[in-house]
Amino acid sequence: MHHGLEPFFAPRGVAIIGASASPTKLSFGILRNLTSYGYSGQIAPVNPKEDQILGHKSYPDISSVPDPVDLAVIVLPAQVTAGVLEDCGKRGVKAVIVISGGFKEIGPEGAAMEKSLVTIARRYNMRLIGPNCVGTLDMYTGLNTTFINGQPARGGIGFVSQSGAVAGGVVETIRDKFIGFSMFATLGNEADVTETDMIEYLAEDEHTKVITSYVEAIHDGQRFIQAARKVSPHKPIVMLKAGRTSAGARAVSSHTGSLAGSHAAYKAAFEQAGVTEVDSLADLFDISMGFAHLPLPKGPRVAMITNGGGPAALAADALAMNGLQMADLSRETQEFLRPHLNPAAQIANPVDMLGAADVAEYSAGLKGVLADPNVDMAIAILIPQALVNTNAVAQAIVDQAKGQSKPVVAVFVGEYSTGKAREILHSNGIPMYVNPETPGRVLSAMLRYARWLEKPVLAEIYWNGLNQPEAARLLESAKDQPALGEVLTRPLLAAYGMPVVAGEMAQSAQQAVDAARRVGYPVVMKIVSPDILHKSDVGGIRLNLGDDDAVRANYVSLMQDIATKKPEAHLEGVLIEAMAPKGQEVIVGMRRDQNFGPLMMFGLGGIYVELFGDVAFRVAPLTRQDAADMIHQTRAGRLLTGFRGMPEADVDAVVDAILRLSKLALDFPQIEEIEINPLLVLPKGKGALALDGRVILQA
Amino acid sequence: MHHGLEPFFAPRGVAIIGASASPTKLSFGILRNLTSYGYSGQIAPVNPKEDQILGHKSYPDISSVPDPVDLAVIVLPAQVTAGVLEDCGKRGVKAVIVISGGFKEIGPEGAAMEKSLVTIARRYNMRLIGPNCVGTLDMYTGLNTTFINGQPARGGIGFVSQSGAVAGGVVETIRDKFIGFSMFATLGNEADVTETDMIEYLAEDEHTKVITSYVEAIHDGQRFIQAARKVSPHKPIVMLKAGRTSAGARAVSSHTGSLAGSHAAYKAAFEQAGVTEVDSLADLFDISMGFAHLPLPKGPRVAMITNGGGPAALAADALAMNGLQMADLSRETQEFLRPHLNPAAQIANPVDMLGAADVAEYSAGLKGVLADPNVDMAIAILIPQALVNTNAVAQAIVDQAKGQSKPVVAVFVGEYSTGKAREILHSNGIPMYVNPETPGRVLSAMLRYARWLEKPVLAEIYWNGLNQPEAARLLESAKDQPALGEVLTRPLLAAYGMPVVAGEMAQSAQQAVDAARRVGYPVVMKIVSPDILHKSDVGGIRLNLGDDDAVRANYVSLMQDIATKKPEAHLEGVLIEAMAPKGQEVIVGMRRDQNFGPLMMFGLGGIYVELFGDVAFRVAPLTRQDAADMIHQTRAGRLLTGFRGMPEADVDAVVDAILRLSKLALDFPQIEEIEINPLLVLPKGKGALALDGRVILQA
Repeated sequence: MHHGLEPFFAPRGVAIIGASASPTKLSFGILRNLTSYGYSGQIAPVNPKEDQILGHKSYPDISSVPDPVDLAVIVLPAQVTAGVLEDCGKRGVKAVIVISGGFKEIGPEGAAMEKSLVTIARRYNMRLIGPNCVGTLDMYTGLNTTFINGQPARGGIGFVSQSGAVAGGVVETIRDKFIGFSMFATLGNEADVTETDMIEYLAEDEHTKVITSYVEAIHDGQRFIQAARKVSPHKPIVMLKAGRTSAGARAVSSHTGSLAGSHAAYKAAFEQAGVTEVDSLADLFDISMGFAHLPLPKGPRVAMITNGGGPAALAADALAMNGLQMADLSRETQEFLRPHLNPAAQIANPVDMLGAADVAEYSAGLKGVLADPNVDMAIAILIPQALVNTNAVAQAIVDQAKGQSKPVVAVFVGEYSTGKAREILHSNGIPMYVNPETPGRVLSAMLRYARWLEKPVLAEIYWNGLNQPEAARLLESAKDQPALGEVLTRPLLAAYGMPVVAGEMAQSAQQAVDAARRVGYPVVMKIVSPDILHKSDVGGIRLNLGDDDAVRANYVSLMQDIATKKPEAHLEGVLIEAMAPKGQEVIVGMRRDQNFGPLMMFGLGGIYVELFGDVAFRVAPLTRQDAADMIHQTRAGRLLTGFRGMPEADVDAVVDAILRLSKLALDFPQIEEIEINPLLVLPKGKGALALDGRVILQA
Repeated sequence: MHHGLEPFFAPRGVAIIGASASPTKLSFGILRNLTSYGYSGQIAPVNPKEDQILGHKSYPDISSVPDPVDLAVIVLPAQVTAGVLEDCGKRGVKAVIVISGGFKEIGPEGAAMEKSLVTIARRYNMRLIGPNCVGTLDMYTGLNTTFINGQPARGGIGFVSQSGAVAGGVVETIRDKFIGFSMFATLGNEADVTETDMIEYLAEDEHTKVITSYVEAIHDGQRFIQAARKVSPHKPIVMLKAGRTSAGARAVSSHTGSLAGSHAAYKAAFEQAGVTEVDSLADLFDISMGFAHLPLPKGPRVAMITNGGGPAALAADALAMNGLQMADLSRETQEFLRPHLNPAAQIANPVDMLGAADVAEYSAGLKGVLADPNVDMAIAILIPQALVNTNAVAQAIVDQAKGQSKPVVAVFVGEYSTGKAREILHSNGIPMYVNPETPGRVLSAMLRYARWLEKPVLAEIYWNGLNQPEAARLLESAKDQPALGEVLTRPLLAAYGMPVVAGEMAQSAQQAVDAARRVGYPVVMKIVSPDILHKSDVGGIRLNLGDDDAVRANYVSLMQDIATKKPEAHLEGVLIEAMAPKGQEVIVGMRRDQNFGPLMMFGLGGIYVELFGDVAFRVAPLTRQDAADMIHQTRAGRLLTGFRGMPEADVDAVVDAILRLSKLALDFPQIEEIEINPLLVLPKGKGALALDGRVILQA
């Protein structure tokens, strides 16, 4: 697929419109960077007041710049940017980076100007990065359109950032650490080119081994999921999302002028699409380094070699907390290790080679554990010691890891004397970390991704028993109401093939008795009123009514009670339903997310969903695997699968209910929210039964 | 209090026994360090083969070293250490550091040698640090008895480490970061001087502002809690515990030869004693820096100033995840800020001063937010920029923070050009972090400590209704059994004043009817058998028996059913108990921890305790506040205090039950475990009722 994004990274010529000759201007910094890192295309400053800047001939306007000029970088006030962009279009420039701020992020006026940029770009079939960004870097073509000081090493991490400040901070943090990048793209307000465009582009970039991204908002969530789902099986995607909390989301929206949306939807989307979500800026690169260089682990068993027990214990804690295991070393491995190590060394895992362990011991130790079939990955820990050659140990680790199909990472606990060792390790594809806790997060992220890759590709779902016209009719009949109560929700669910407990509406004691006889005793009686959302809170449910007399008596007392308690409520009658058999109560629901669309929810029923927050989310459309994943991700899922000797429940019926509900939400965008609460899950093979439900329509 | 630990840090003279003249030996490294950092006392190498080493006269043995010699450092093989220690005792040396390994950590033989060191030390009234350690550093006297390369800056962190490797790694990591320490003590196997001794010592050290410790095992848990509880109100204690998971605990025990014990007990002890527990080596020092330098926050509201939105959003997420809030800036503050900042700046919190913000803006920004009464603490974020003077911004932050009663921290996102800024900030008591997520953890740890300080000091508990002789008699009667079933546990609980549901033992249908009449209908019938621990798993409980006939019929059928299901079980009869009123079921229990003693447990009843792991622990003896804390720390506690309109339950009765159970555990060390499951909590004012319980005795 051609996205037209190549000129942002490998243009044959670049114009800097608004290039200044003054070293105190950012545009001068851009020109300086463009000329500093080996970029070999034409560099054309555009500034009518100068003849040349930094040795490059300056042009009065873009139209006078000679070919080739694939890319223009505009560094001018917001007010004049549209005119210059128009000129770029006329000149035949195919890609433009607008560095300038003063657009959507400052309010409605800026947003209008930003909109006009997009209109102009579309008219000339130009792609636009920005506005309000800090440009792009390509470590292979040497292009650097940013004013950031310094440039990272060449390597496999392709980094996409919605924040220029984050990109600048990252360069500041990693530039002397030999962490290799293929390219940086800062996207600013994403008026045209979005994070999803970049993911699709980097998927096809040969230098990029891992796509790493900092995002604040993903506006077209459905397209993002589709794209990421296509890319993830071939190339790992690692993302850090700002605005995971409401405080963070407010901070995001205050500086971008856009709403971040609920993090539940992002989390769900990342999980569905095989995206590795990380929790911090440090993790973003610590984990990306692993993906860029290492083979994926085949299992959770980790071996450690170390010259100090304390850091190894901390590392072991972090592994366990991240779901990994300490490998049991085989007898053969232990016998191999014994003669190579200090007689007082500990040859079980962690292999503690003691403080004086030097190159030969590290070589033998790592060789031994990597050869062990019980070991899936290895960590080599060194606490720098006066009499141990740190750099030679680094080289020994590199040599032993070479050609291995198992991931190896190094922990060198120290930042004072480890600079050269880091260069040796990083230049040879071994991530080096300073904190003993880091490998737990890195290796577990890699294992999670490896397991995601192993998930079966799931066949399309063939629906049966969907009565779309009936659902449409029901929704049409309620279109002037804000919500559908239980009485209308029941047939709507039934129309989409969801099993609903038998029941009928009744508006007199006699109708209630007739209904109860048809439904079959014992029955439940529920108040029906558009003004009562939570029936049980007002005592609006009577359980286990065994005969005509009970139904009659309760009809009268229920209507009286509620009339007394809620005199303002309009009472339409009662719903008579069959008493449900025994089962496990869960909640299945949907609410429409502004960025991602229908967000499906599953959780434990009763008060526990709120007390423990035990819920999982996925974005529709979802696969059968997605639905199963969301169940198994919760504690409620453990209850359903036979916890503590309880009978196994019909999980397949819950999967089916989630899928049918998601289909209903996709087919009818006027539905804002649906909740089946509770869905009663019967023992395996017996299905599930919606006992109550409601639908909220879009205002 | 005099601990005899002064000579480890401020000796008038030091002997290095086993000092080598060869630069490839660790003992040479120690001598080099001793002479390198300004230590002004006598330095006496002891080595019969040399005349002098590094310019210091060498002595053939410790007896020939002239006065003063307060401290001896022994660097000799384990086998000869005892003899040399004996010589030290005879020479009148009062403090000895044994660097050598080869003791408890290598097995029983080493453990025996270690024991003899302690015997000798006690005989001569010497204090001993080690063996298997790397010595001590004192940044104020210049004493450095380690072979670690380099020395940290002078400051307020007193660091105690059970691991020499961790201490070495820490020096490597922080030595060029201007993080100030008062002293380091590495304790190795803790044959004599323990972490608790050091905590007590550092509590009185004027230079130490925060006591920071890495521990692998605390052997005398009760003494630790007592000491830490005394110190915490005056000086913060920050601890990192290795072996929090079972994998980590195995790693600890494999290299120290000692068992770490369950982390639940450590966590409880830390919480009770006001100790700040951290999760990683990086946090240990990031958080200690805050405690060493900053005033404590008075509330949770944080203001942020920044020159980039992305890092501020990440920082805001981290604050919220750690329970802090973004402050709402007052109108006055916003009006103050407006004219000082870029017109496009965001003057709500986070205050985004935009990329070009320089010294004047940082000064005004920080001044403005610190003056706001809605702000409890502030974070100044800088992403280094080409045209902004990083060092001058650092100085501006220092100037604005000076004299403030609110904590201020800096986040400089970068490690390339921030070295001098870090020096300026750290030398002036402002912690600088590189990752925007760090302040969330630091500031929340400080707020938690501030709130712990505010907790009322609780009066001693005066017990009533304890019948110790009766409890002793019951336990004596069961002393040959491994456990007490419900029948014996009931009177034991009652003897300590715990309300137990009314009930009686019966051994025939007629006895059961008689008991039921006395207890009052309806009743519950439970099987009594020493061979049946989980009565409900075998159908051994019959509920809600309403009359004589039901009791009689159920007695027969219950005995038959159980005899069929568990033919090997000896059936002693049944327990007839009153049906309990409605209430919330919780679990209260105790198990004896090997290091800490009676560990009290509280959690939600039923299957949820296991499903959600919703439990809290405290170590006995506990205060009323401790018991209340453990309840409120769980979700179960939320249920008891009126969750979602449920009636408030009698939390005081649960506190009372926990305290009485803890007293029982303290009074009778032969009790290994107690469980009251369920304890039924009635509505506020109505008490709580033990419905079932069991006791396990020590084997």
